[in-house]
Amino acid sequence: MTQHETSDITETVLRTLEGCTDARYQQVMSAVIRHAHALVREVDLQPHEWMAAIQFLTRVGHTCDDKRQEFILLSDTLGISMLTVQLEQARRSAKALADRAATTQPTEATVQGPFYWEGAPVLPLGSDIGAGMPGEPAHYSGRVTDTHGRPIENCCLDVWSGDGEGVYDMQMGEDAGMRLRARFHTDADGRYHFWSVKPTYYPIPDDGPVGDMLKAMGRHPNRPGHIHMMVYRDGYVPLTTHLFPSDSPYLDSDVVFGVRDSLILPYTAHAPGTAPDGRTMERAFHSARYDIHLAPAA
Amino acid sequence: MTQHETSDITETVLRTLEGCTDARYQQVMSAVIRHAHALVREVDLQPHEWMAAIQFLTRVGHTCDDKRQEFILLSDTLGISMLTVQLEQARRSAKALADRAATTQPTEATVQGPFYWEGAPVLPLGSDIGAGMPGEPAHYSGRVTDTHGRPIENCCLDVWSGDGEGVYDMQMGEDAGMRLRARFHTDADGRYHFWSVKPTYYPIPDDGPVGDMLKAMGRHPNRPGHIHMMVYRDGYVPLTTHLFPSDSPYLDSDVVFGVRDSLILPYTAHAPGTAPDGRTMERAFHSARYDIHLAPAA
Repeated sequence: MTQHETSDITETVLRTLEGCTDARYQQVMSAVIRHAHALVREVDLQPHEWMAAIQFLTRVGHTCDDKRQEFILLSDTLGISMLTVQLEQARRSAKALADRAATTQPTEATVQGPFYWEGAPVLPLGSDIGAGMPGEPAHYSGRVTDTHGRPIENCCLDVWSGDGEGVYDMQMGEDAGMRLRARFHTDADGRYHFWSVKPTYYPIPDDGPVGDMLKAMGRHPNRPGHIHMMVYRDGYVPLTTHLFPSDSPYLDSDVVFGVRDSLILPYTAHAPGTAPDGRTMERAFHSARYDIHLAPAA
Repeated sequence: MTQHETSDITETVLRTLEGCTDARYQQVMSAVIRHAHALVREVDLQPHEWMAAIQFLTRVGHTCDDKRQEFILLSDTLGISMLTVQLEQARRSAKALADRAATTQPTEATVQGPFYWEGAPVLPLGSDIGAGMPGEPAHYSGRVTDTHGRPIENCCLDVWSGDGEGVYDMQMGEDAGMRLRARFHTDADGRYHFWSVKPTYYPIPDDGPVGDMLKAMGRHPNRPGHIHMMVYRDGYVPLTTHLFPSDSPYLDSDVVFGVRDSLILPYTAHAPGTAPDGRTMERAFHSARYDIHLAPAA
């Protein structure tokens, strides 16, 4: 059958993959073609709508530069990023999730977001990465264990967040350098503790095409407050997640769908005085305790 | 139910559309979300594959400029453009297609492509738009009628093609101006005739990300030879189509899936001598006859 005698163009396009020598690429592109065609047919896409989609995607591409990744923002705001995070965690933690002898589930993963910066300074436990930045001081502590409750010593916690106004160091201008981020390593009992600020909600960059899309969808552009953590040590499935203060706005409508119930925790408010680590605080402060559980690597 | 208590992220994302006040936008975005999530789930998309997709789309965006539209190329090579053309023709010509008294079907539509240039010169019937350009001369003639065979007088044929080497005027450099394109109007009997060249096959621009995709898929980048026509007059469904010489390579594997059997026609070869319009030709030439049928506007 020749191409032009085929009444179903979708089948014709799929047949062009017969010469593809990469089985996985063939599988993915076959799915791209089938789902894209099904979408066009389902909505009976009009030519002017097709052109609007072309122009939207072109704008998204032109908005991308060294500092801004509008396609990731598009993926995030359509829940595609969080869906791939969930699939990855389910795949990599399958053994731990099925382990009936386990005393706890692995800590839930969430999106990495655009503000991770590799090579944050390695600091001793107890350091303050929020000193001098806008925001209310917060003391973070907890334990890293495996899913049987055994402590994980010398486990790296790579943490980062925005300041008390929701601004990340990467958004503070050329000369700001690294702020509010560091790598800590757990002690022999798996414990970690450090000082930073209590994070607050903020809007994702919404002055581009993704912002226009959110407006057209009738959505706000906000994320609830959160502090990021990447937690890893050889022998365990690495974890990328956030912790969310339980009193933050937008916990129920995170624009990138990153919130999990299990990642929400109370920040206890304290009057000035002695902090959990013995430090004397002249300002009011918060404390947040959270234990982290890693799945064994397969 | 709060966002983070929902186990199915797809449902959560779909619920954000509840505040959308544009019913059609809501319908289209709902389908975009459902089909994109179904694609990710079906192939169990890995994080590095997700990142490769983000980087591919970013490259496609960065390849777009005033002269090149890589997203249209992407849509064309995945058959999405041709699918929307088919849906549009089916929708707009539904009445004509269902008309049992009709003596003929409307001429089939195909993709517009990236080389349409509005405002081509209006020339008298019989003009030669290929004079001085590379390629073998070809005489085009035929009749434009409705689907009952009634001639359509003063109907505009906006025609354009590449030269005999497959190069369009838009690709010839800044100063080339309009070549191989013009608007003709049918006579009282619906007839048209003009001279141009016999078009030849050519590759779509394949030095960008879409070219890389085609290589990875195991596909060639070629289109069979064709001359474009946009045919319109008030009262009729406008038609955008091509005519394809029946001896062109790639008729069975057009990289943009634009070929229809009904649009393939023989180009008759003639030795130098008297042409169909009485002109004396000192070179060998071709002649191509094709009648065009427009559906009545709804």
